[in-house]
Amino acid sequence: MSKVILTYGTFDLFHIGHLNLLRRLKKMGSSLVVGVSTDKFNELKGKKTIIRYEDRIDIVKNIKYVDTAFPEQNWEQKVEDIKKYNVDVFAMGNDWAGKFDHLKEHCDVVYLPRTEGISSTSLKSLMANFDKAHVGELKKALDIIANIVNRFE
Amino acid sequence: MSKVILTYGTFDLFHIGHLNLLRRLKKMGSSLVVGVSTDKFNELKGKKTIIRYEDRIDIVKNIKYVDTAFPEQNWEQKVEDIKKYNVDVFAMGNDWAGKFDHLKEHCDVVYLPRTEGISSTSLKSLMANFDKAHVGELKKALDIIANIVNRFE
Repeated sequence: MSKVILTYGTFDLFHIGHLNLLRRLKKMGSSLVVGVSTDKFNELKGKKTIIRYEDRIDIVKNIKYVDTAFPEQNWEQKVEDIKKYNVDVFAMGNDWAGKFDHLKEHCDVVYLPRTEGISSTSLKSLMANFDKAHVGELKKALDIIANIVNRFE
Repeated sequence: MSKVILTYGTFDLFHIGHLNLLRRLKKMGSSLVVGVSTDKFNELKGKKTIIRYEDRIDIVKNIKYVDTAFPEQNWEQKVEDIKKYNVDVFAMGNDWAGKFDHLKEHCDVVYLPRTEGISSTSLKSLMANFDKAHVGELKKALDIIANIVNRFE
C-alpha cells in the first residue's frame, strides 16, 4: 500500500541533520515528496541562504530517501501540492506545531520533535575537530569572512 | 556491460561541487564506488575536517549516484579495493596527476580536470547572497568562530 509523505524546507548547507530528517520521513511511508523553498520565496520571508536554490534542490533531489523534490514558491500552494502528489501525511518540525492544522481536511498532519539543529551540531563538531594546531586555518577563514563583511559595510 | 568506477575523497561539508563530481563519475560507468577517508587517516595526513567521518560517509552513501561507499583508512589499500570491487576505472582529480600511475597494471587510471572548488564556490555564493542588510548575521557567525578560536589559544 502506497503512503506518500510531504514536507517543506530550505536545506541550506546540506548536513547530517537534514539527512536524518529525510531518512526519518521516508521511513514513515513508501514515498517522500519534498518542497524546497526558492530564493524568491525566502526573500519574501526575509530569509537569506548561503547556497542558491538550484544547488539546494539538486542535492535534495539526489538523496536516496527523496522520491520527488519541487519548488516551494509561496504560502498558498500546499493544498494544491497535497492533491497533486496524493499526499497521505504532511510532516513538519514541531516548531510549526498547530500552524498547518487547516490542512487536516486534506491529509494527516504531524509535527515531529526537532532533532539537534545545525548550529549546535556544527558548533560541536567544530569544537571536537579543531585543536590548537589548527587554529591557524580557522583564522584564515575568519579573515576571509571579515573581508566579505567589510565589502558590504 | 558493467563498468565500475572508483574514487576516493573526504567530502567535508557536502556541497554542489561534490554532487557534480559524483554525477560525472557515475556517468562514466554503470556503478560508482567511493572511498571516504576516515578521521584517523586524515589525521595521519595532517588534515582536519569540520564534519566527522561517520556523518561524511552517511551523506555520500545516500547520494543517488553512489552505489557503494567504504572507509579509506590508509595509502596502501587501493590495489585491494580495486580487486574487491572489480574496478574498471580509477578516477581522481588532476591535482593528483601521475600520482597513481602505478595502479595502471590493475585498471584504467584517469585524472579529471578539477571543477570549481569549495572555497571559490562558497565565497561566490556568500558574495551573491549576502547584502548589507544581512551583515549582522554574518557578524554573529564571526563572533561564534572567534569564541571557538579563543578557547584554543
